[in-house]
Amino acid sequence: MASLPDRMRALLLVNEGYSRMPSGTALEAMSPYVERAEIEVPEPGPTQVLLKVSLASINPSDVMFVKGMYGQPRRKGRPAGFEGVGEVVAAGSEAAAQGLVGKRVAFATGLSNWGSWAEYAIAEAGACIPLMDEVRDEDAAAMIVNPLTALAMFDIVKQEGQKAFIMTAAASQLCKLLTGVAAEEGYRPISIVRRDDQMGLLKEIGAAHVLNATASDFADRLRDVLGAEEPRILLDAVSGPLAGQIFTAMPKRARWIVYGRLDASDTVIQEPGQLIFMHKKIEGFWLTEWMRNTPLERKVATIKEAQTRFADGRWSTDVTAIVPLDEAIDRVADELAKPNGKVFIVP
Amino acid sequence: MASLPDRMRALLLVNEGYSRMPSGTALEAMSPYVERAEIEVPEPGPTQVLLKVSLASINPSDVMFVKGMYGQPRRKGRPAGFEGVGEVVAAGSEAAAQGLVGKRVAFATGLSNWGSWAEYAIAEAGACIPLMDEVRDEDAAAMIVNPLTALAMFDIVKQEGQKAFIMTAAASQLCKLLTGVAAEEGYRPISIVRRDDQMGLLKEIGAAHVLNATASDFADRLRDVLGAEEPRILLDAVSGPLAGQIFTAMPKRARWIVYGRLDASDTVIQEPGQLIFMHKKIEGFWLTEWMRNTPLERKVATIKEAQTRFADGRWSTDVTAIVPLDEAIDRVADELAKPNGKVFIVP
Repeated sequence: MASLPDRMRALLLVNEGYSRMPSGTALEAMSPYVERAEIEVPEPGPTQVLLKVSLASINPSDVMFVKGMYGQPRRKGRPAGFEGVGEVVAAGSEAAAQGLVGKRVAFATGLSNWGSWAEYAIAEAGACIPLMDEVRDEDAAAMIVNPLTALAMFDIVKQEGQKAFIMTAAASQLCKLLTGVAAEEGYRPISIVRRDDQMGLLKEIGAAHVLNATASDFADRLRDVLGAEEPRILLDAVSGPLAGQIFTAMPKRARWIVYGRLDASDTVIQEPGQLIFMHKKIEGFWLTEWMRNTPLERKVATIKEAQTRFADGRWSTDVTAIVPLDEAIDRVADELAKPNGKVFIVP
Repeated sequence: MASLPDRMRALLLVNEGYSRMPSGTALEAMSPYVERAEIEVPEPGPTQVLLKVSLASINPSDVMFVKGMYGQPRRKGRPAGFEGVGEVVAAGSEAAAQGLVGKRVAFATGLSNWGSWAEYAIAEAGACIPLMDEVRDEDAAAMIVNPLTALAMFDIVKQEGQKAFIMTAAASQLCKLLTGVAAEEGYRPISIVRRDDQMGLLKEIGAAHVLNATASDFADRLRDVLGAEEPRILLDAVSGPLAGQIFTAMPKRARWIVYGRLDASDTVIQEPGQLIFMHKKIEGFWLTEWMRNTPLERKVATIKEAQTRFADGRWSTDVTAIVPLDEAIDRVADELAKPNGKVFIVP
């Protein structure tokens, strides 16, 4: 690959390790956490590939990571970005890596510490998914983290046995994917949002109920819907008082599964007695843990299902903005604050 | 049984159903919840026995029940009291009940709605344990709820696999029983208390560490002990900020198991991110649920183990006060506020 440059532009982590000050997972600004700089193009290890990034996605997990609130320490001076789409332009010595050279792949950078918010990124060969031509870059760049989280959490819902389940931040890309799959299989998503203009779309794609948590009659509507549907699973990206209120209103054997923390205010267990007498539980979900504990064939099948859904149009990623890497520091926080779609970085 | 009277003295529930105002499980006074009265002596159903109560215990679960915070609704006008010791003086038609007549038994009133804070009580024959002569009334009257909870929760500790585990309110009767058993089997109880004078005794009966949560160096000591012992289970009778602090300081895969709520203040999940990235969980323990889900032979073995431990002196109930039923309304709250022992009611 004689055409590879020595240096590249990238958005580098400004801080090391974890944050000492817990906060919400909303991004107030990029500049406290990443900076634009030029660094050397990295070299892949034996099992890794080097990717020329076409498009990188910004997930809530990226925001938690750059803020030091993710389950993996930051390395100062390395590019951020867990996910993207690109072409494999170099590979390590192992066959699995070599076999990917020249292919267009969706990739997750995982623990490589060479993230996707850069002209070039590093990923393990096993974390690259060769793409069908039908899959758009916007879908491919967001094909791993959200879709796999959605499908893995839907597995939890299916194992619990109740058709109805609840989601907070239900207008997120992740929840929209999950809503579509669940409705297709006869499940009844109860979608909690904060804006009336999000309600119509969610009903269209399969939500059984959509409730606006800021409405004055929210508590009453919540009680009625929970009474009728008896959901046991709360998939919660928000935490804080809203999630606590929903959990308290849920019936016996409810499970509150936290996977994000958009609200930085205190998360109170309003009725600890319900843990004792109603057998309720509070736990978390992390895709990395799911990847560790799930058999390979199940993972492969899940990834294939995700790609097929994007290829045949059942799933599609809503785009809020595609921001050039050189403008990212100034623009990304504002774009992320807009509802309903995903924000991408193009190098 | 010609000698049975028609009427009896009892402490009757003043309220119906559940409380609408959540509060702590400390008893501020008896009079808002029970009243002394005379009512008719009840008749046992076919599978039940009538007990002449010798001694009735007051457990934290009784306090939660009379306050309307337990997992079972109150029935106004019926006697409170889940547990006691007495003689079977009448029985229903079934053989299991008939076979108990004349015997001295430890009993749990369960759902009978004829509690032990009375001259006579009703229990299912299956909830009566014929007693060895060696067992004192003070031990027999407290032989079911606390000992079974202690042994059942110790099973959870054993299943988790770590030798060390943490208890709040560790000077309670329940925790003292649990500490003794656990130390005997090579486990390492970490006992959290609120008074220095409770520390020596707990060390003597087998606590590996005793920490005073009100000490100025508590946070540092907690960190050191948790770092060295890596406990995964927190058995929590307190909830509130103390339990939240301990849970936050615990290592990966920690389980916070709530079984009481002595502190009425807010129970905050200080770091919801730990549920996601450290695989921590929050759940509850209720003996009634354990009784429902545990195979009969395991229950019988557990009950036998409890009685044997009291009979041979390995376990012994510390007595704070034995209060005559006629003085209970005035005196019980004050006696319960004293540390380190159990309070009984004698009809």
